[in-house]
Amino acid sequence: MSTEDTTARRRGRRPAGQDTRAVLLEAARAVFAENGYERATVRSIAARAGVDAAMVNHWFGGKEGLFAQAVLKLPFEPDELVPILRDGPDDELGARIAHTFLTRWDGVGGDTFQALIRSIAGHEAASNVLRDFFSQFFTGLLSDLGSDRLELRVALCASQVVGMGLIRYVARFPPMASAEVDTLVAAVAPTLQRYLTGDID
Amino acid sequence: MSTEDTTARRRGRRPAGQDTRAVLLEAARAVFAENGYERATVRSIAARAGVDAAMVNHWFGGKEGLFAQAVLKLPFEPDELVPILRDGPDDELGARIAHTFLTRWDGVGGDTFQALIRSIAGHEAASNVLRDFFSQFFTGLLSDLGSDRLELRVALCASQVVGMGLIRYVARFPPMASAEVDTLVAAVAPTLQRYLTGDID
Repeated sequence: MSTEDTTARRRGRRPAGQDTRAVLLEAARAVFAENGYERATVRSIAARAGVDAAMVNHWFGGKEGLFAQAVLKLPFEPDELVPILRDGPDDELGARIAHTFLTRWDGVGGDTFQALIRSIAGHEAASNVLRDFFSQFFTGLLSDLGSDRLELRVALCASQVVGMGLIRYVARFPPMASAEVDTLVAAVAPTLQRYLTGDID
Repeated sequence: MSTEDTTARRRGRRPAGQDTRAVLLEAARAVFAENGYERATVRSIAARAGVDAAMVNHWFGGKEGLFAQAVLKLPFEPDELVPILRDGPDDELGARIAHTFLTRWDGVGGDTFQALIRSIAGHEAASNVLRDFFSQFFTGLLSDLGSDRLELRVALCASQVVGMGLIRYVARFPPMASAEVDTLVAAVAPTLQRYLTGDID
């Protein structure tokens, strides 16, 4: 392998890396479809893609992250998002979450969210991965804020975030389907803020 | 037809009426599946069930209501719910909506909600009917309250109500999946109340 190749692989965002990543995602979709989530292994997915299993863990954080990217097609990863969202006043956390969620999902198109909802309605594994994603994501966000009843708060945030996506991208209720991001952020941010740090009794 | 039969039919909830109703729902599911929502007609559904088309309109309020009951399996109809929900203080409307939604859907079992989500993810017609249901339902509720931006308020309420159902019945996040109704009502009611009558800018 040339020095150039090695550099490209290390950075993981260069064309060569993206090709391998696409091959891995395709292999993952096939193996998850054939074996289901529980019986699929990182080893078998890596073997089908012709790459080392360590690369899967490096890029996707293991089977769960691979499922999230390949099947749920989440346009973000919890580890990447938490530092971005923590960067600002605590009392505007709800607004930053709503804004980030909407701009990311608007960016990849509504079909991706529809595929997510179909996965959730059809596969228990998809729900498990979504639950773990939200749990990891919001627990990371909430860890310093001193809120009680974290698990319920995470579920409440998920209900509003996923519900907003369902109405905007799948059921397409006007005017939510076409509303400006800022309009929806203004309406939904106080809800998320209360679920994160406010009174829920 | 005996006097007893006539009375049973008029009330529409007696055993004889329920049998006809079940036959109609089954015919509706078949016709919607074969022809899709747009091309299905009340006349063809009634003919398959061997009943008069007028009875479909009487019981279900036409094609849309039939689709709501047969395919979406909504455990309520807007006309029935609005008077129930209006009966109480305006500032507890959010709590009454959350309570009614949860107890009705708990009563029919989570599978029904899963079927609803699958319909929405798979059929545009299902989204249209759900949208009309929410629009009719919340517009009826909001008509006297003097709120502005009714369409956005309806969509916001739908996002929280449907999102809560998705997390409780389909994705089954703990503790939302098993939480007492009153716990969830306490958490979600202020959200619905604000979307209905509060500040959303």
